[in-house]
Amino acid sequence: MSEPAAHSPSPMPNVPGPAPVAPIRRVRPTLAQMGLSPGKKARLKRLLYDHGPGGGTLLILPIDQGLEHGPMDFFENPAALDPTYQYDLAREGNFSAIALQIGLAEKYFHEYAGDIPLIVKLNGKTSIPSDAQAFSALTGTVEDAVRLGADAVGYTVYVGSPSQDRDFAQFRTVRADAERLGMPLVVWAYPRGEAVAKKGGKESLFAIDYAARVALELGADIVKVNFPVPSEKDAESPPPYNSLKLTGAQAFRKVVESAGRCLVLVSGGERIGDVEMLAKVRASMDDGATGIIFGRNMWQRPKADALRMTRELHAIFREYAQPPA
Amino acid sequence: MSEPAAHSPSPMPNVPGPAPVAPIRRVRPTLAQMGLSPGKKARLKRLLYDHGPGGGTLLILPIDQGLEHGPMDFFENPAALDPTYQYDLAREGNFSAIALQIGLAEKYFHEYAGDIPLIVKLNGKTSIPSDAQAFSALTGTVEDAVRLGADAVGYTVYVGSPSQDRDFAQFRTVRADAERLGMPLVVWAYPRGEAVAKKGGKESLFAIDYAARVALELGADIVKVNFPVPSEKDAESPPPYNSLKLTGAQAFRKVVESAGRCLVLVSGGERIGDVEMLAKVRASMDDGATGIIFGRNMWQRPKADALRMTRELHAIFREYAQPPA
Amino acid sequence: MSEPAAHSPSPMPNVPGPAPVAPIRRVRPTLAQMGLSPGKKARLKRLLYDHGPGGGTLLILPIDQGLEHGPMDFFENPAALDPTYQYDLAREGNFSAIALQIGLAEKYFHEYAGDIPLIVKLNGKTSIPSDAQAFSALTGTVEDAVRLGADAVGYTVYVGSPSQDRDFAQFRTVRADAERLGMPLVVWAYPRGEAVAKKGGKESLFAIDYAARVALELGADIVKVNFPVPSEKDAESPPPYNSLKLTGAQAFRKVVESAGRCLVLVSGGERIGDVEMLAKVRASMDDGATGIIFGRNMWQRPKADALRMTRELHAIFREYAQPPA
Amino acid sequence: MSEPAAHSPSPMPNVPGPAPVAPIRRVRPTLAQMGLSPGKKARLKRLLYDHGPGGGTLLILPIDQGLEHGPMDFFENPAALDPTYQYDLAREGNFSAIALQIGLAEKYFHEYAGDIPLIVKLNGKTSIPSDAQAFSALTGTVEDAVRLGADAVGYTVYVGSPSQDRDFAQFRTVRADAERLGMPLVVWAYPRGEAVAKKGGKESLFAIDYAARVALELGADIVKVNFPVPSEKDAESPPPYNSLKLTGAQAFRKVVESAGRCLVLVSGGERIGDVEMLAKVRASMDDGATGIIFGRNMWQRPKADALRMTRELHAIFREYAQPPA
Amino acid sequence: MSEPAAHSPSPMPNVPGPAPVAPIRRVRPTLAQMGLSPGKKARLKRLLYDHGPGGGTLLILPIDQGLEHGPMDFFENPAALDPTYQYDLAREGNFSAIALQIGLAEKYFHEYAGDIPLIVKLNGKTSIPSDAQAFSALTGTVEDAVRLGADAVGYTVYVGSPSQDRDFAQFRTVRADAERLGMPLVVWAYPRGEAVAKKGGKESLFAIDYAARVALELGADIVKVNFPVPSEKDAESPPPYNSLKLTGAQAFRKVVESAGRCLVLVSGGERIGDVEMLAKVRASMDDGATGIIFGRNMWQRPKADALRMTRELHAIFREYAQPPA
Repeated sequence: MSEPAAHSPSPMPNVPGPAPVAPIRRVRPTLAQMGLSPGKKARLKRLLYDHGPGGGTLLILPIDQGLEHGPMDFFENPAALDPTYQYDLAREGNFSAIALQIGLAEKYFHEYAGDIPLIVKLNGKTSIPSDAQAFSALTGTVEDAVRLGADAVGYTVYVGSPSQDRDFAQFRTVRADAERLGMPLVVWAYPRGEAVAKKGGKESLFAIDYAARVALELGADIVKVNFPVPSEKDAESPPPYNSLKLTGAQAFRKVVESAGRCLVLVSGGERIGDVEMLAKVRASMDDGATGIIFGRNMWQRPKADALRMTRELHAIFREYAQPPA
Repeated sequence: MSEPAAHSPSPMPNVPGPAPVAPIRRVRPTLAQMGLSPGKKARLKRLLYDHGPGGGTLLILPIDQGLEHGPMDFFENPAALDPTYQYDLAREGNFSAIALQIGLAEKYFHEYAGDIPLIVKLNGKTSIPSDAQAFSALTGTVEDAVRLGADAVGYTVYVGSPSQDRDFAQFRTVRADAERLGMPLVVWAYPRGEAVAKKGGKESLFAIDYAARVALELGADIVKVNFPVPSEKDAESPPPYNSLKLTGAQAFRKVVESAGRCLVLVSGGERIGDVEMLAKVRASMDDGATGIIFGRNMWQRPKADALRMTRELHAIFREYAQPPA
Repeated sequence: MSEPAAHSPSPMPNVPGPAPVAPIRRVRPTLAQMGLSPGKKARLKRLLYDHGPGGGTLLILPIDQGLEHGPMDFFENPAALDPTYQYDLAREGNFSAIALQIGLAEKYFHEYAGDIPLIVKLNGKTSIPSDAQAFSALTGTVEDAVRLGADAVGYTVYVGSPSQDRDFAQFRTVRADAERLGMPLVVWAYPRGEAVAKKGGKESLFAIDYAARVALELGADIVKVNFPVPSEKDAESPPPYNSLKLTGAQAFRKVVESAGRCLVLVSGGERIGDVEMLAKVRASMDDGATGIIFGRNMWQRPKADALRMTRELHAIFREYAQPPA
Repeated sequence: MSEPAAHSPSPMPNVPGPAPVAPIRRVRPTLAQMGLSPGKKARLKRLLYDHGPGGGTLLILPIDQGLEHGPMDFFENPAALDPTYQYDLAREGNFSAIALQIGLAEKYFHEYAGDIPLIVKLNGKTSIPSDAQAFSALTGTVEDAVRLGADAVGYTVYVGSPSQDRDFAQFRTVRADAERLGMPLVVWAYPRGEAVAKKGGKESLFAIDYAARVALELGADIVKVNFPVPSEKDAESPPPYNSLKLTGAQAFRKVVESAGRCLVLVSGGERIGDVEMLAKVRASMDDGATGIIFGRNMWQRPKADALRMTRELHAIFREYAQPPA
Repeated sequence: MSEPAAHSPSPMPNVPGPAPVAPIRRVRPTLAQMGLSPGKKARLKRLLYDHGPGGGTLLILPIDQGLEHGPMDFFENPAALDPTYQYDLAREGNFSAIALQIGLAEKYFHEYAGDIPLIVKLNGKTSIPSDAQAFSALTGTVEDAVRLGADAVGYTVYVGSPSQDRDFAQFRTVRADAERLGMPLVVWAYPRGEAVAKKGGKESLFAIDYAARVALELGADIVKVNFPVPSEKDAESPPPYNSLKLTGAQAFRKVVESAGRCLVLVSGGERIGDVEMLAKVRASMDDGATGIIFGRNMWQRPKADALRMTRELHAIFREYAQPPA
């Protein structure tokens, strides 16, 4: 490949202190660089160019919180308890895709098939039992997703969990099926477990950086990560993480580089203010993210407000459009 | 979707104090909304319209207590120890279906085949060992149920159990087989385990609400839930459940909304008085339940009494009839 | 078994000349005698008692002529070209079941699921190529039928065809699947081929009697036969068929006896006059048939006329009602 | 069913002489009527509404002649020998999809994935050996098509061929896989064989009408048929076809009715003049066709001419747009 | 069902104190009631009527102690260490069947095949490790048993063990294979584990009653239970077991009723005196047992003594003969 690599890494300061670099817009990996099979490419292109803001960006609406957190997440905006709320929001707001569990696909997608791309999450768990051995069992298969007309599948890996070995083994079967059936594979890469807690915590650069790399190493096409939050707990991370003094943006850029040729989605997490949210989006896109996956920050708002915010996001994403290649 | 959503949620008060809302009859999900395959539709319609009280309602007679609790549940009415007692009661009382384990199907159903619809429960356990890691292993398969001429299958999910991951994985195989063979899938959604106990207990709204949603997310067609019992233990539930001051009916309506397009069956639980039982039924149906599943409240009575009660239930259910759509 | 056999054969004259026997109503095989699995029993009982004229009789509406004969059969009543015509007729006329190919099931049954029992025909052919090696390849599977919510499957055996070996082998797989999945198996037992033509033809007692016995021997639950037509061509049949001088009714009774514990359906064949048709039905039922399968004699009429005829058939069938046993 | 049937047949004259009926625009089957799974619906909607002329119409570019006829078809326009020619034409002309063999998909589609929907033809043959036993063996699988990101699969059935039994059996496996994986199934329904030749030939109404019905009966979602060509050879067709005196348009309408809830594609066949071609398109659409599949009539022209013609076709198709339902 | 139920339970006192009921001979389930497939029926009838004491009774000789307890059980009568000893005893004493592990079947049965029916036990364990998580792994398959010419298979379920879920799951596969291959299934239903010990112990009515019901629920055809031993430990059983004051015979009758349509075999257990042993047999048969399974009580005696005892048992069993139905 003669073209310049997407992520020719900028000099990464391994000395303390913020680097005075001018903001550089990082280039996202191209579909050609990712070496995708035709099926993965056709489906991914649909999300990146035919739906949502387009131009190679992704604006995903997840609605997996009902399983992962329980119905409590819907109390703020009770209308959002009915999954048609999110489906309608995704269609009206022109999202790139909606991401949810098999049950919400089987009972509702038939009314939206062909209108909005579907990402079926293939594993999940509740928040009730202890997270100490966090592991999400398979709740669906890649073949289920094909049958339902989905354009991608999702899988949550708990990096660092004591159950990581079962997780990796289970992931392998999903990755292999996704390859066999040409289905793009989105990995929710979540650091978890006691060991993570002791090494700076699940929001540390150490943990998120490692998780992003794990997704790349194991075969994800797209990786969803949280935006790292520098804190004093970083001092508990292994060296050299414990002595890096990076801004959040620098830390995130590092994560994007670790993700290599995986497209990076930034997680919204808990609901935050509008200014903060838009700043987070811009920072992410500046640093090479392909898009965002915002759930609670979308459907916990009144619908009109969510649609207004979506239009603002579309406007921002258009600035980052790049042609397919 | 232009039709009104089945569960367009009523405003859910997130401030303390019972809301002075007038009782509103909620609309049950229609077969068309549920997106069922022709096989699931044909079989489910049989239960909802051709047997039992009809009009889209369900009156199910379960006889799984012999395995789940042991023969002790039959002491009150010794005649009920013989499974022909329940089969006869289901036939004479015109129940929508009888629900039981594979052994009771293989040894007795041949005498009732074609007279009463059968739901084969596909997993089970005894009450003898500790419930700490509650998990019900498969005791039969969807193909067994097809071979026996059943019209639905049942599966118990222990939401919140430390064994939840094995449970979800096992459930996935049942869900996929049920989809492949057009067999409606009824989920007994039971909160269980130490973590549940610490968060308000298995009869709390928190636990039941979450369990109903899990059934929807994982792909149930029908979910059996207990009626939530508000108590001071709710204070131990996570926010905002710990500060909701809902009546039992308001809490149940919330559960029905969380179940989305799953039809909701209300569990009878331990034997209660007639007035209380009929009030529970009316409240459930007012709030969107599709029917009830009453075992001990039926077969722990003398048969004549059970049949009288069944006639009363039929009369009530007729008030809630709705045409197929 | 101490109960009287269903088919204790009446003395069968093996000397020439019609026997002056008084008409005796033959007893049909009971479900108990047939040794059915619970699934076959539950499904068959639905056709025999819950739909159609009931009382253990069958009134089946086939619509397989579009494949077997081509659209030409619909010219007489053009409205019948649209399969909803036959579905509506079956529902309005309260037939025991409708019998058709997988394509007509997949594209139309979803609108009738639960309203009318479905028999999926699992093999078929067109009438275009020569019938010399008549063989109907599988077009669907028993599992397809289960998935679609059918209550029985159908299979055409061409008895006497040079391809009979492939046919028997293919039939074996269907019979085994039907047993495994509890699905009643209806066999269209058709004599075919040059050898049949040389031995009295496909409407001879020799051929039809042999075909009925083949269905019994190979494992059918229900066999559809044509009413034998005595003719001078019988002289070409092997002895003693070539010297029997039976009336049509006597010949048919013989066929029913050869079918043993298979329920017998009489084929309508080409459209005939009303008086002749009703006489054929009475004769068949008198001699032990379980029912009739009339296609062209139904849907080649204007709908009002077909419904009138259906009501007459219901009235006749009620005379032959017998309780389940 | 309360909605009007898609194909409520117009009165079909069964007496000789052209019927003086006014042209009536026939209604095409809706996606809802077709009873499609969510996957089939999502994919089919893409072809019908997101690509090509849209509005529920189809404009398909086939390039299967290289296998079926050999490279001789490319002599007229040598540039068309390179498959990128047709891919580019499909993309520039905004066709609904391109239809071709597995090899042309594997070697070329990676450059067009996501830009133009793909239909993989799953069987094929050359024109070299005798067509007497015409049979197209599988060259790919539905799973291949899924892997490649196709939105539909194609299969050629040779109706009337002496090999029809092998063909039906092979088709069954494709139909079942397409159902399992949610992939729309397009059937090229071609009358073939000596028996067809003796009964009016493969362009007779008899043959094409029968072929359309076979596709419906066996489970096609879309059927490609030739426009029937009335001729004196019709006299050799079986009655009543041998005495019908229909115009081409009347004959075609008959075929559309026989296809029932299959969407109908009209074949272009050999290259014809522009005026004739556009008239054929209008006539087809007036009579209920969903679209056309024109190969040689497209890529045997110079590209500029093909694109001009394509624009004219788009303009015509827009007149026939109907919203999804 | 018009026939009297096999187990119409006698009034079960739920007040303390022995009920002054007269001894009633209970009716054993008939083969017809059990709903057996022809294969299960043919094989079971061989044991019940053609071998052993006949008349629908069972006298089984088990020799599984070598695996379950170790060779120590053979010290009392060293000749019994050689498996030909038990085979010869079974043949000479005309037992209904011999029950043993796959190894004893493969190495010895070839000399006795056809002389004495064989029951292959399909799982087992040693007594060496702790019984706390008691679980018997599969040592053979139903297909092994068919291959060897066995007439039934045996399986040990440890009811109440913490490993109960693995046990149920493993049992399901055996039950399904036994159904598929028409092989009668004998369940050794043994209460085990710490929870059992805390609730009255493995010889309590609570434990044995529950175990018998579990066998019925999970699909056993025959269940082997121990005779319950009332003791003061019953006070630790859950209510109402802790306050029942039943005689051993009353307790056993209760167990038989809980077993429903499973035939009940009474276990011999440790060696006891002759008078006590014969009394136990009569009591068991009076209360509805189908037979006994005596190992150590047989082969720990000198052979002549064992044969004499066998003759006495035959005499007793003849009093309980009932014709097949």
